[in-house]
Amino acid sequence: MNFQARPLRLSTTQTDFEAEFHKRLHWSAETDDEIEQRVADILKDVQQEGDAAVLRYTERFDALPAPSVAALELTQAELEAAFDALEPVQRHALEVAAARIRSYHQAQKQASGQSWSYRDEDGSLLGQKVTPLDRVGIYVPGGKAAYPSSVLMNAIPANVAGVEDIIMVVPTPRGEKNQLVLAAAYVAGVSRAFTIGGAQAVGALAYGTATIPKVDKITGPGNAYVASAKKRVFGLVGIDMIAGPSEILVLADGTTPPDWVAMDLFSQAEHDELAQSILLCPDAAYIEAVQEAIDRLLPTMPRAEIIAKSLNGRGALIQTRSMQEACEISNRIAPEHLEVSSDEPHRWEPVLRHAGAIFLGAYTSESLGDYCAGPNHVLPTSGTARFSSPLSVMDFQKRSSIIEVSAAGAQKLGPIANVLAQGEGLQAHGQAAVMRLR
Amino acid sequence: MNFQARPLRLSTTQTDFEAEFHKRLHWSAETDDEIEQRVADILKDVQQEGDAAVLRYTERFDALPAPSVAALELTQAELEAAFDALEPVQRHALEVAAARIRSYHQAQKQASGQSWSYRDEDGSLLGQKVTPLDRVGIYVPGGKAAYPSSVLMNAIPANVAGVEDIIMVVPTPRGEKNQLVLAAAYVAGVSRAFTIGGAQAVGALAYGTATIPKVDKITGPGNAYVASAKKRVFGLVGIDMIAGPSEILVLADGTTPPDWVAMDLFSQAEHDELAQSILLCPDAAYIEAVQEAIDRLLPTMPRAEIIAKSLNGRGALIQTRSMQEACEISNRIAPEHLEVSSDEPHRWEPVLRHAGAIFLGAYTSESLGDYCAGPNHVLPTSGTARFSSPLSVMDFQKRSSIIEVSAAGAQKLGPIANVLAQGEGLQAHGQAAVMRLR
Repeated sequence: MNFQARPLRLSTTQTDFEAEFHKRLHWSAETDDEIEQRVADILKDVQQEGDAAVLRYTERFDALPAPSVAALELTQAELEAAFDALEPVQRHALEVAAARIRSYHQAQKQASGQSWSYRDEDGSLLGQKVTPLDRVGIYVPGGKAAYPSSVLMNAIPANVAGVEDIIMVVPTPRGEKNQLVLAAAYVAGVSRAFTIGGAQAVGALAYGTATIPKVDKITGPGNAYVASAKKRVFGLVGIDMIAGPSEILVLADGTTPPDWVAMDLFSQAEHDELAQSILLCPDAAYIEAVQEAIDRLLPTMPRAEIIAKSLNGRGALIQTRSMQEACEISNRIAPEHLEVSSDEPHRWEPVLRHAGAIFLGAYTSESLGDYCAGPNHVLPTSGTARFSSPLSVMDFQKRSSIIEVSAAGAQKLGPIANVLAQGEGLQAHGQAAVMRLR
Repeated sequence: MNFQARPLRLSTTQTDFEAEFHKRLHWSAETDDEIEQRVADILKDVQQEGDAAVLRYTERFDALPAPSVAALELTQAELEAAFDALEPVQRHALEVAAARIRSYHQAQKQASGQSWSYRDEDGSLLGQKVTPLDRVGIYVPGGKAAYPSSVLMNAIPANVAGVEDIIMVVPTPRGEKNQLVLAAAYVAGVSRAFTIGGAQAVGALAYGTATIPKVDKITGPGNAYVASAKKRVFGLVGIDMIAGPSEILVLADGTTPPDWVAMDLFSQAEHDELAQSILLCPDAAYIEAVQEAIDRLLPTMPRAEIIAKSLNGRGALIQTRSMQEACEISNRIAPEHLEVSSDEPHRWEPVLRHAGAIFLGAYTSESLGDYCAGPNHVLPTSGTARFSSPLSVMDFQKRSSIIEVSAAGAQKLGPIANVLAQGEGLQAHGQAAVMRLR
């Protein structure tokens, strides 16, 4: 098959730019009532029947009958054996990636995840105690889109945070196990792993069953059933963000080889046809060169069909008046991945206010960040980088305020609290403060 | 009326303790289908009609007709005038509380909310850029439960984070404005304020209207309509946690005057009848003394009826075998407010793993923390302190990963990324890394 990829061409000078730009960006998560209802039923069954429901749904959806949920547990020995059996080049890659991801998240914990406190002039102690969650669940998709890198990106921050129990669930349809996923679980420090998936796995983690321990938070990507189940159990347990389609925005000043930029656009587009790849560039000739590179390179790609569908349906090559304008448009999009493909990336970085991850300079392909640069690849999608952040060590910690008011402090604060409490009509609040006055 | 408050008496040595304890703790947020449907309709109307729908619902629900949404805006001059018109004692209390809350949150920003980066051995730059949200909405309840302290606790962290636009909404049924709320908005640095409330205000902030600017995140407490609306717009904008009933857990070793502990239990119970106050103590005689204090003090409380209902329906005085056991039970509850009413609070604090805020020592009444100690009073309820945290400066910031791979780094990382990408069947990812090899 010969596929053609022609991303939408726009220029910020065209009169209908705003309308066309808006149309191309638009994406909304449709909720599917049928999926919602099925997920609600599955969760109810898991809550009420525990292991029995997990076994029933695992047989039904994954064609994997088992005598007990215990029989679906992967032993540490099995995870380790999967790692040992890898080809040396794969084992090395997994180890290097894990070590770099670990270093980065350790730096993150050091910078933002430490307890702190101070005493005020009255000797009162004020601060915040940071503690890891006790137990978390990591959802790992199985089947055709099994991503060992996601195991690293979810489990390592939890491990660095100090979470004692990291429970991985991964569906293995017809019992087919992805050895790289198992090996990644071993490298990342997963405590226990079960070959279950779907809404039933989310339910088992959220409610706990006789065999599967109840967790405090569930992270990790999944299909529409998994996403719906996570939303439903949110509140009972914590969850990470619900991800939309993946996106890349490339800001190019024309100094990067066009082939590199074309391949970076492909690397987003190859995820699925809803993925979005956008180039912003002030140089018309460069945009043309990128389109030529797309035409030339596309036939070499095994996933050419998906790439073409994504670029034709959702991609865009946009000519801007300047790099400054490109940065401003980027701030409106708040992209998940933002490449600053420029020979002066530090000139533009301070202007860029909203993005999940910012990749600076021609050598920083998104794919290096996806796998092994160190930062997390779980990033806010669909413009949510305006208010949310990459998955981090802090997602696996929680904070408790610490307050110790001294006897002297109570004398000073008591009357203040009393006045404000009376103003709110909460007299016991006021009285509790007044009683502490000498 | 003569009210009696008899919290459930339990002992951890009784054989049915687990069952009785579990029953007393149980609380679940029932979703009301009628509320859900009405909120969905209101949000749809606001999304489609903007200002017109906001005006219509404000007239209907708040009996407040207005010619335009602009007419519902409170000017900065009006906020300032409310502050200036306060009695000096109230003005002073508001100022001291605001200054202390500001200091604490500045320390928090310094400790956990700063950008950071490092270069690895290949000169690659890795880090995280921390930026404030552009614009947030603060929901402030109006009517009978108007809490100026909540204005401070929501707006000050946003202001400290560096949020440029802080939009407050507060319903004013029949046009009745709470002057303390307006004054608190002035002190806290609110940018703009509108006298609207309910699901229509949440919708206006989430979608934006011709008059009300669209925000990136909405925080602040509200009734069932507000909570439902916040849940529905979550994803389009960020939200804080949905709060359940407020709770206090007091761990007492018998060294604090029983009256103080009784009043602290009251100060939680007076919020509403679903609020929960629990005492854990190894000393039976002390528990008896607290019950006597409850009996003696209750008739002096203006909100005696609510306090009695709350303590009778949800309160508990639990005798434990030891303080150590009391701490373990506290970890199971993961309370919103946790008082360690002991003369050796620092002995027990390290044992306490899950709590929204920990109040150490006899002088630290919860009410001092609620109003003016400095830490935030927006805390995780209903056991969610197992995985979530007090409202903080970080809730008004977001982080972007920063990655700049050097030419040398790309040579080292490229083959690693390529191996992992091939293992996941994502060839464009691999190729993008390989192209950067010299």
